[in-house]
Amino acid sequence: MTESVHDYMTRLGQAARQASRVLARASTAQKNRALQAAANALDAARAELTAANELDLSAARASGLEPAMVDRLALTPKVIDGMIEGLRQVATLPDPIGEIQDMRYLPSGIQVGRMRVPLGVIGIIYESRPNVTIDAASLCLKSGNATILRGGSEAIHSNQAIARCIQQGLAEADLPAAAVQVVETTDRAAVGELISMPAFVDVIVPRGGKGLIERISRDAKVPVIKHLDGVCHVYVDIAADIDKAIRVCDNAKTQRYSPCNAMETLLVHSAIAARVLPPLAAIYRDKGVELRGDAATRELLGSDVLEASEDDWFAEYNAPILAIRIVDSLDAAIEHINHYGSQHTDSIITENFSDARRFLTEVDSASVMVNASTRFADGFEYGLGAEIGISTDKLHARGPVGLDGLTSQKYVVFGDGHIRT
Amino acid sequence: MTESVHDYMTRLGQAARQASRVLARASTAQKNRALQAAANALDAARAELTAANELDLSAARASGLEPAMVDRLALTPKVIDGMIEGLRQVATLPDPIGEIQDMRYLPSGIQVGRMRVPLGVIGIIYESRPNVTIDAASLCLKSGNATILRGGSEAIHSNQAIARCIQQGLAEADLPAAAVQVVETTDRAAVGELISMPAFVDVIVPRGGKGLIERISRDAKVPVIKHLDGVCHVYVDIAADIDKAIRVCDNAKTQRYSPCNAMETLLVHSAIAARVLPPLAAIYRDKGVELRGDAATRELLGSDVLEASEDDWFAEYNAPILAIRIVDSLDAAIEHINHYGSQHTDSIITENFSDARRFLTEVDSASVMVNASTRFADGFEYGLGAEIGISTDKLHARGPVGLDGLTSQKYVVFGDGHIRT
Repeated sequence: MTESVHDYMTRLGQAARQASRVLARASTAQKNRALQAAANALDAARAELTAANELDLSAARASGLEPAMVDRLALTPKVIDGMIEGLRQVATLPDPIGEIQDMRYLPSGIQVGRMRVPLGVIGIIYESRPNVTIDAASLCLKSGNATILRGGSEAIHSNQAIARCIQQGLAEADLPAAAVQVVETTDRAAVGELISMPAFVDVIVPRGGKGLIERISRDAKVPVIKHLDGVCHVYVDIAADIDKAIRVCDNAKTQRYSPCNAMETLLVHSAIAARVLPPLAAIYRDKGVELRGDAATRELLGSDVLEASEDDWFAEYNAPILAIRIVDSLDAAIEHINHYGSQHTDSIITENFSDARRFLTEVDSASVMVNASTRFADGFEYGLGAEIGISTDKLHARGPVGLDGLTSQKYVVFGDGHIRT
Repeated sequence: MTESVHDYMTRLGQAARQASRVLARASTAQKNRALQAAANALDAARAELTAANELDLSAARASGLEPAMVDRLALTPKVIDGMIEGLRQVATLPDPIGEIQDMRYLPSGIQVGRMRVPLGVIGIIYESRPNVTIDAASLCLKSGNATILRGGSEAIHSNQAIARCIQQGLAEADLPAAAVQVVETTDRAAVGELISMPAFVDVIVPRGGKGLIERISRDAKVPVIKHLDGVCHVYVDIAADIDKAIRVCDNAKTQRYSPCNAMETLLVHSAIAARVLPPLAAIYRDKGVELRGDAATRELLGSDVLEASEDDWFAEYNAPILAIRIVDSLDAAIEHINHYGSQHTDSIITENFSDARRFLTEVDSASVMVNASTRFADGFEYGLGAEIGISTDKLHARGPVGLDGLTSQKYVVFGDGHIRT
């Protein structure tokens, strides 16, 4: 194209802003129709999707991309089923837009409450998985926001094939095409433009590796809803029920190793360590989990537990590795978590009411749990119906971000000719 | 001082971060005690406050500061009374911290809800009025946040005298001195440091002129809760009650001219203009309000109404000047507001249910009203008990920001040894 990247992105931004005004007042039925029609379009376009994906896959293989990355790029029939199912599920969720809360009379006689409204235009920047295109677009559409999607250049053909199905859905529901736009250039400058257009983009949601997210957060001129690390802890308190402790610690580490809500460091009170750690260590060894401990842990479990370094307490392994530390008090556990953790998800195992209460109050993380596995920290498990990500920020949205996190609330005021005196 | 501004601000930041952990778990009684004790300290320190203020006032006069600015700097007995009263009032407000909402069981058996927690450390940057020191410090303290306050250099002695009273309050309540810190250097570099320490500062609230706020928003490396323009509209619909229209339009413009929630542009439906505008114009003329209108308005009201330019539709006068435009439809009114407005506060005067409903939905402003004066857009009038400002942002806090706007919500999860399967 002869148009500059700046002009191209500005054009996308302007179109998105205009479309956002139409979407903001679109009816629930209209938005759901678009989602269902896009699902039907995906189902009818399986051959085209596979063909487009094949272009990306062979380019990726030819360029020597790691096999794991190539796998993430693949639009298998199962991934396509998942996208279709995801669209239909978002269509069944309650529409957050227009919900009015806390309407009440004030002494002056006016009635004041808050109405949920879309944020406006959301920019999504993501890496290889092309199914994010559907995830993100469907949640933004349902919450009345226009979206500009910038996927990885290695998935460009797949993303554009998916975008065509979304376009079909929008057209069938009489919604503007610019409600969901997929950036068509692979020029990296497009990302820089997308994050620097406060007039046209209200918030950026980056999804991908930590490097990408840090870069975007640093450079963005618009607010970013972001997820950085998931250094999650389970603390087995002196008053823990041993069976619950073992069950939860096993699950939090081994149910899946890669998610951000998997446990990375296990803290155990010294008075209970001898009863909890040996049976747990046996389970972890059976499952091939590498253990790294402090001196007390190694003394208890034996020297095949590696010595944990300072770096281990900060580490997000996303792998079958676990750091273990024995602490002498609840205070020490809380201090460890607030110092080394990433404010993502932390759980205490205890039967003691006051210890639970202190942990909930004093651990400064997006999710704090009592007697539950950190693996529950997830929009679906929390009943949000879906999630666009897990925020480790404090402002706006914290923890799993569902439809509500993509909205804002404005004040509505009713009067009867009321004036201020 | 021999310490660099960077080192000095870093030291403040570190101290604030540490103090924020103590404040986050401070009891309601302890926070209230600090507020009451600070009020008592202010009351006991009237002479010192006046003396310190006199230093600032004479320096300001000597430097040729405008009389209006000098006035804003003055700590009169009435202003001191207001600060004392403000502290006592914040002490009586309900404590938002620890409030748990929406706790419910999910299909997996876990119980999930959200707990209100402080944001952490809040940086406040403000211009001349020294009483902002008390306003901001009291709201941040009540909401469990540590604060770093950077007032204008012209108020440095007053701010430090006020800070000493706050310190007394903190000490009497056994809260750390670093819970509220007033920046002691007048070096402008301190602002640049304060807005660039994401490790130590969670959010910046600038209070002052538009120039200051734009500069801070542009340069900040941490989120900013900001208030830009207040270009507020009243739209008199075709179905308006004439008496209500006149009452509200008079109040919205003339009750006070300088606040950001005063009406700046009046829109009137053409079918009702001849009944609404002449009596309104008479009121405005009586009160000395300069009118600027479009052609239709001037035809109706006479040529002493000045011709409104394109700039007038964008203008925030904060003065006895009003722009008036006659529109042919509700659509035209909504379009005008969304195009020229500042998304602050806009009101429709109508008895028609569907027109009211459309206006509420389609006007994209922080406060949308029906049959009420825009002057109600205020934290006190909305029942928030206090306000740290009015946000024209959409993310996090929109509209008047009270204690809740200085908090975040984390998820709390209760289980009984629950694991994810």
